[in-house]
Amino acid sequence: MDVAGGGTPLPALAPPAHIGDALSMVDTPSLVLDLDAFERNLQVMQDWADRCKVALRPHAKAHKCPEVALRQAALGARGICVQKVSEALPFVAAGIRDIHVSNEVVGEAKLRLLAALSRQARMSVCVDHASNVAELSRAVAAQGGRIDVLVELDVGQGRCGVASPTAALELARRIESLPGLRFAGLQAYHGSLQHKRGHIERANACREAAARARECARVLGEHGYACPIITGSGTGTAEFDGPGKVYTELQAGTYPFMDADYGDNEWAGPLAFGNSLFLLSSVMSTPSADRVVLDAGLKSTTVECGLPRVHDRPGLIYSAANDEHGVVRVAAGAAAPALGEKLLLVPSHCDPTFNLHDTLVAVRGGVVEGLWPIAARGLSR
Amino acid sequence: MDVAGGGTPLPALAPPAHIGDALSMVDTPSLVLDLDAFERNLQVMQDWADRCKVALRPHAKAHKCPEVALRQAALGARGICVQKVSEALPFVAAGIRDIHVSNEVVGEAKLRLLAALSRQARMSVCVDHASNVAELSRAVAAQGGRIDVLVELDVGQGRCGVASPTAALELARRIESLPGLRFAGLQAYHGSLQHKRGHIERANACREAAARARECARVLGEHGYACPIITGSGTGTAEFDGPGKVYTELQAGTYPFMDADYGDNEWAGPLAFGNSLFLLSSVMSTPSADRVVLDAGLKSTTVECGLPRVHDRPGLIYSAANDEHGVVRVAAGAAAPALGEKLLLVPSHCDPTFNLHDTLVAVRGGVVEGLWPIAARGLSR
Repeated sequence: MDVAGGGTPLPALAPPAHIGDALSMVDTPSLVLDLDAFERNLQVMQDWADRCKVALRPHAKAHKCPEVALRQAALGARGICVQKVSEALPFVAAGIRDIHVSNEVVGEAKLRLLAALSRQARMSVCVDHASNVAELSRAVAAQGGRIDVLVELDVGQGRCGVASPTAALELARRIESLPGLRFAGLQAYHGSLQHKRGHIERANACREAAARARECARVLGEHGYACPIITGSGTGTAEFDGPGKVYTELQAGTYPFMDADYGDNEWAGPLAFGNSLFLLSSVMSTPSADRVVLDAGLKSTTVECGLPRVHDRPGLIYSAANDEHGVVRVAAGAAAPALGEKLLLVPSHCDPTFNLHDTLVAVRGGVVEGLWPIAARGLSR
Repeated sequence: MDVAGGGTPLPALAPPAHIGDALSMVDTPSLVLDLDAFERNLQVMQDWADRCKVALRPHAKAHKCPEVALRQAALGARGICVQKVSEALPFVAAGIRDIHVSNEVVGEAKLRLLAALSRQARMSVCVDHASNVAELSRAVAAQGGRIDVLVELDVGQGRCGVASPTAALELARRIESLPGLRFAGLQAYHGSLQHKRGHIERANACREAAARARECARVLGEHGYACPIITGSGTGTAEFDGPGKVYTELQAGTYPFMDADYGDNEWAGPLAFGNSLFLLSSVMSTPSADRVVLDAGLKSTTVECGLPRVHDRPGLIYSAANDEHGVVRVAAGAAAPALGEKLLLVPSHCDPTFNLHDTLVAVRGGVVEGLWPIAARGLSR
């Protein structure tokens, strides 16, 4: 084929919306935040943490959006969590100065970046391996920084973390023996607990996980290593972990937004959150009476936790996600949407869905109020 | 929490690699292209198209990377396909001047962009609805452009497209009656055929789909609407569609890279492609003898077509994908990787995996030769 050189100026891609636009004017697919529901969710969790006298340290891996973190900070959050060290950059740039990397950081380039960030913000990080502790110390000391280090304890998830109080104690000793590092406590996160559906089942599982964290902290304390921080929990378990007297801070991430997966939990306790996050999508084909096709598929929302749900349109079922298409089945008797009509979808899993988008369209009462950059999108190193 | 104002300059995120680096030095997670395997794959498909005397119009939705498209063009591709109109922008900017939007484009903003692009490149687009044809004409005519329009025929996929030759004929008439539009033929793509595992089963299904396209073109021709273009096919069916005398061009997308899903097809015919696309990942935790944890999960590779596979390391099985973690089971007797060691993964589905990354690290003989921007990443409008 012909490949042309430069010349004529290219048309530019318009932003997906402008401030003041009606929601119906927003280009699709776009990730949309209902600000009223979002603000209610923020307040519910902050009030809960305050009432339980624990710190709230919201997880920014969920949203990757500094505008969200700044609102969480304004309500009283202690700081934020990130899961990857590169992910911290836009949050530090936005002024967030207390960041916990709730994960192990392995590899020279990553440790160098973490050490540099520790000179600009109060940074903390998890470890579960002695050689990583040594490398972390070298990297931090080389830049004259200082970093809080938490030992990650596996409280049943079977992912990272040491398995026993003895192993935790060994790492705490190692941390305290090396320059640039300060032992700050434990991380005891259990991801799969968050989605145990039954309320009582989830409560019981939480107690078991918290008991392991408590026992580990006891052993460490006996040996002179107090744990000022025990961090963990999440949106699905904050109602149990908050008043449980083990965790000193809650790492919840999804609660400002919710998603279909968390929505399927049984919410029978004091906490409940409403959907504030939606994917706006257009009907791009109406091939038959029982089927329409949307312009949003796997590149706009992920499906590892199930398909997205059509919001507030009974009888419309998102039934297949292709790369760029969503096939919606129209049940008998349901009102079929017209070509070009826009539908709101509830994503099934908010974290990886945020990671597909560059802009969060913030809407109040059906009118666009802000375009918030999802600035840490793609920062996975 | 404290939120600080500006001041000290932030550390910058280093690029994932530099030209000349060994593969082992590339930061993780990174999407890596083995150039030797990639170039062999490009040549195999172009030779096949040439031998079959059909045009090759590779699908750029697979890779979203202009550097890839330029290499496909250099070998003889007629042009490219994109799936979304915004996706075309970086390819036009890179000099590609023949672009087929293999999809319906619905909505004023999108049609305006398509019309603007039609003044810079030979653009074509699909339709399956009369009102969309009218809107397309208005948008193109308003900018004084001209665009080739293909009627999409549903040849069995059950997604977009008209269902019958009669409906196709009606749209062809409508296209030819309106300013700015030129009827150019049919799109007859069948996505689910691409992954029918058995070779003979796939061949038979292809024949059925092609027969529908042939019959539709015959009816159109009888009424004076010749179809200079019948576009469709893909990586999994090009070996049947190429010599089948129905399709005039092949839209294959995955063949330069391959993935685990396409790898599971039975490749018993004249075409075979090797894996050139890998996700480089680091071991970030080694909690037990039978389990290690990688730093690449759902935000670095998607799982709707299954989990990624560990490349060339027998006994290591990627067994769970969390948002940022991959849990790898180490089979009894297998060599467990050490903390910090880097593993190559074969993504299960290349298209949405490319869409998670901003840079493709191009490697030859284990040395980085280029850093190619995945410039259309996230362009889903």
